[in-house]
Amino acid sequence: SEAFVSSGTPAGVGVDQVPSWNPTFVSRNFTDAEIAYCRSQPSPPSSFAARWVGKEAVFKSLGVSSKGAGAAMKDIEILPNESGVPTVSLHGEAQAAAQSKGIKQVLISLSHSETVAIAFAQASS
Amino acid sequence: SEAFVSSGTPAGVGVDQVPSWNPTFVSRNFTDAEIAYCRSQPSPPSSFAARWVGKEAVFKSLGVSSKGAGAAMKDIEILPNESGVPTVSLHGEAQAAAQSKGIKQVLISLSHSETVAIAFAQASS
Amino acid sequence: SEAFVSSGTPAGVGVDQVPSWNPTFVSRNFTDAEIAYCRSQPSPPSSFAARWVGKEAVFKSLGVSSKGAGAAMKDIEILPNESGVPTVSLHGEAQAAAQSKGIKQVLISLSHSETVAIAFAQASS
Repeated sequence: SEAFVSSGTPAGVGVDQVPSWNPTFVSRNFTDAEIAYCRSQPSPPSSFAARWVGKEAVFKSLGVSSKGAGAAMKDIEILPNESGVPTVSLHGEAQAAAQSKGIKQVLISLSHSETVAIAFAQASS
Repeated sequence: SEAFVSSGTPAGVGVDQVPSWNPTFVSRNFTDAEIAYCRSQPSPPSSFAARWVGKEAVFKSLGVSSKGAGAAMKDIEILPNESGVPTVSLHGEAQAAAQSKGIKQVLISLSHSETVAIAFAQASS
Repeated sequence: SEAFVSSGTPAGVGVDQVPSWNPTFVSRNFTDAEIAYCRSQPSPPSSFAARWVGKEAVFKSLGVSSKGAGAAMKDIEILPNESGVPTVSLHGEAQAAAQSKGIKQVLISLSHSETVAIAFAQASS
């Protein structure tokens, strides 16, 4: 009776609590530029959390499972552009996955409250 | 003074807490395949919650009000495809609504933390 | 090593806790029609919170920073249309920003639980 089935996923979302971050976790999953940026923000834990769910959302938008922490989370770098808008850069495996799928860009939006962070990522070819 | 008005809603979002689920509620709102899948997951309450907000988001993306629990939530079935990507199947009234609007597919993305689940659905023609 | 960079943000998200709202904050950031609508709803705090994160998401979708409370949040008005679907009207600076970017409409989806509200906004030209 499944007459209507949709597959594929050009968009991805992420949600997580805003935790406290330990240095080992941070250095394993964020680039130096991301760490410097998050530490400069009013609430570093919120900034790390928003970026973390952003990375998960980007992985989903690429159609790649993120494998969680320890996966190549550093391959997805989210930094503000000159206007302060979060901007995605892909490296390594994530970049290869995007290229193999003809994905030209991934747009991201991040938001967080004091306790929750969410992200939306949209890949386009 | 409303010179700029937007209407329509090709995308929908959903959010809810991750609760504990009672069997009556579950059997009324989830298909057998969804129940089997959620029960096989590491955190069944999180999986049920993500699917629940996913169904709400799909209803919104169809431009149909969901009427909450007891509505034809079973008409929207969200199961992983062979790659593990959540995939929407429409049945009954939801399928009819989609067809009448020329909607060919609905893409979904789900995410949950230990306490919050969110979903994003995108209908396309 | 940044061979793949994405910029721009046609979509925006927002998340926040559902708080209690004080009258000064409400009258500064919501239009009379929004206030009347939210007060008529089963949970006014949830309705205000969903609309608040909706306004933030719309600002992001316009590529404009929201500056938070006190910014021209009233320039973005979110009211249900005749079908109950949340609909965005832009006024003042927000309308000018949209026009200067060739944005013809902004679609919005809102959702809230008892404690969390989220929004997704999509601008299109």
